[in-house]
Amino acid sequence: MENFIHPNAVLGKEVEVGRYTIIEDGAIIGDRTVIGHHVVIHAGSKVGDRVRIDDNAVIGKLPMSAKRSKTTQAGRRFKPVDIGDDAIIGTGAIVYAGSVLGTGVLIADTAAVREDVTIGDYTIIGRNATIENKVTVGNRCKIQTDVYICAYSSIGDDCFIAPCVATSNDNYAGRWKERTKYYKGVTVRDGGRIAVNATILPGRVIEHDGMAAAGSVVTKDIPDEIIVCGNPAKSLRNVPDNQLLKNQEE
Amino acid sequence: MENFIHPNAVLGKEVEVGRYTIIEDGAIIGDRTVIGHHVVIHAGSKVGDRVRIDDNAVIGKLPMSAKRSKTTQAGRRFKPVDIGDDAIIGTGAIVYAGSVLGTGVLIADTAAVREDVTIGDYTIIGRNATIENKVTVGNRCKIQTDVYICAYSSIGDDCFIAPCVATSNDNYAGRWKERTKYYKGVTVRDGGRIAVNATILPGRVIEHDGMAAAGSVVTKDIPDEIIVCGNPAKSLRNVPDNQLLKNQEE
Amino acid sequence: MENFIHPNAVLGKEVEVGRYTIIEDGAIIGDRTVIGHHVVIHAGSKVGDRVRIDDNAVIGKLPMSAKRSKTTQAGRRFKPVDIGDDAIIGTGAIVYAGSVLGTGVLIADTAAVREDVTIGDYTIIGRNATIENKVTVGNRCKIQTDVYICAYSSIGDDCFIAPCVATSNDNYAGRWKERTKYYKGVTVRDGGRIAVNATILPGRVIEHDGMAAAGSVVTKDIPDEIIVCGNPAKSLRNVPDNQLLKNQEE
Repeated sequence: MENFIHPNAVLGKEVEVGRYTIIEDGAIIGDRTVIGHHVVIHAGSKVGDRVRIDDNAVIGKLPMSAKRSKTTQAGRRFKPVDIGDDAIIGTGAIVYAGSVLGTGVLIADTAAVREDVTIGDYTIIGRNATIENKVTVGNRCKIQTDVYICAYSSIGDDCFIAPCVATSNDNYAGRWKERTKYYKGVTVRDGGRIAVNATILPGRVIEHDGMAAAGSVVTKDIPDEIIVCGNPAKSLRNVPDNQLLKNQEE
Repeated sequence: MENFIHPNAVLGKEVEVGRYTIIEDGAIIGDRTVIGHHVVIHAGSKVGDRVRIDDNAVIGKLPMSAKRSKTTQAGRRFKPVDIGDDAIIGTGAIVYAGSVLGTGVLIADTAAVREDVTIGDYTIIGRNATIENKVTVGNRCKIQTDVYICAYSSIGDDCFIAPCVATSNDNYAGRWKERTKYYKGVTVRDGGRIAVNATILPGRVIEHDGMAAAGSVVTKDIPDEIIVCGNPAKSLRNVPDNQLLKNQEE
Repeated sequence: MENFIHPNAVLGKEVEVGRYTIIEDGAIIGDRTVIGHHVVIHAGSKVGDRVRIDDNAVIGKLPMSAKRSKTTQAGRRFKPVDIGDDAIIGTGAIVYAGSVLGTGVLIADTAAVREDVTIGDYTIIGRNATIENKVTVGNRCKIQTDVYICAYSSIGDDCFIAPCVATSNDNYAGRWKERTKYYKGVTVRDGGRIAVNATILPGRVIEHDGMAAAGSVVTKDIPDEIIVCGNPAKSLRNVPDNQLLKNQEE
């Protein structure tokens, strides 16, 4: 089959590689991993056992740096990407060098995971979602389609972030030269939830089991086990008992 | 020209195929269809006559299944994708196995159509829009850029859904083990419209010619021929006569 | 290395071209430009010196035209794309024929720039953002991830448009045959800013240094140096002095 596997790449047992796929120098691919067509696995990337990588995915991309950017450091070296066992990487998904993905992670089609990101075990990153640089996501989270997680954010375990949620980290909206000192992403504690198309302002904290309702604009921190809604969001009621993380059997 | 066409694929008359494109086993391509570069047409896919498929599109992708997902059935078999005559499939668009696209459908660049979806004739799915699994869309709809249509939704004929609209189907926001029994997508009746960046809550119905204004958060059903706006959305006024579906000449 | 460079393409000095990349007839590539894997550079495209084009990017795509579209003119001819020196084009980004990109422009991963668009020097178009047809963007703008800029919009110099901002141009929401006469995009004057996930209604003007707060729904023009917020957006306060464009040293 027509593809390119660099002689210094290391492939495990029973690896399948599609057509016109490129595996660059020093990449390490685990046993029984299945790689689709037109995939690019950049130099040095590490991919676990039984991983599925679909067509057009790009693994281990090196960051780009705009000449006027204040946040991406040109000339830095990045560790190779490290993708855990049993992960699934969707069609056209992009996983940057300098990111670490746990066991059983699903990165859906055309989603992107930037450099300096850690994603915990069994977490799902939805179609077309963006996880910016310097973000940590815990275990068993569901971050759904089209979600935008800004740089410097921290997401705990068992969080649920519904489609089209938008987050932010810059209270100065790109103006004032001192602003980069004050960048602060969003924090979602274990069990925190954000419903569809909600907007979270820079630095806001969603405490344990706290929840932002659909379409809410969250300008203040959300306390434990409280649902907020509206623009600006205000306290609506307590999270129902059957939705508290401690009461889940699954 | 360098590409791969499986010997069991069936190509009609005057089909054009770009470079490094892959047409797998049993795919059937209609007459005068034009296929770009780096396209993947998975095994068994059916593509009509005079279809245009642009670079990097992936046709007939098999669903992925996260280990912890409650909604995608592992091990199921899917019917091959069936794309009608005169359709246009954009650059990097992804059309899953188990979907049926009517005549003259346009799927714009990087849009995705999941499994178990039916799309009616002459409907447009905008750039980067997502049509989740188990969705039905009628004829002559315009679903624009970045729209998110959640699973279990139903869109009638002649509907207009503006850019960045978000829909939802889970009132329990990913929590409570019984929730999957209550998943309910959005229903838009014939002629219903949703304006830019509006948010529709689970199970809500937009009746004939009903309309959600820009940025509205729709928590209640929208009656026939009524415009709602705000967060939460409230009734604003009647749809002007010249915008009613029955008064269109086109 | 396996790739396709048409004999009539013109490559400058020290150009690097990745695997399975296609450079079509008459394309002109400047000196020291670096092109990744699986890239398509369509016929006639002009790319400057020291440009970086990442994997899967598509340069010079010809517009598609839905049979029922009122806005894209079938049969028209488009000038070749023209990409300035020192530009960076991200993975999977799509730049249409008929667009002009200035010096040092960054088009991030999977972003799209449509036909009849001009983008000024050193402007950044974020990941997955869409710049529709017939849009002008000035110099040194930051248009961030997932932003949607509708057709017929005009963005000045030094504007900041935060992630997930949505704009619109059709007050008739796709209904009424006369509507195309009244399409009017959004105007952002020099220094104007729009915060995360805000929504801008058709034809609205953001005056110099005006600002829409996070999640706002902008139904009226925003005056000079004023911040508006809410749904619908109302005047909140003046832009702080240290955020005015005239007070920036950078």
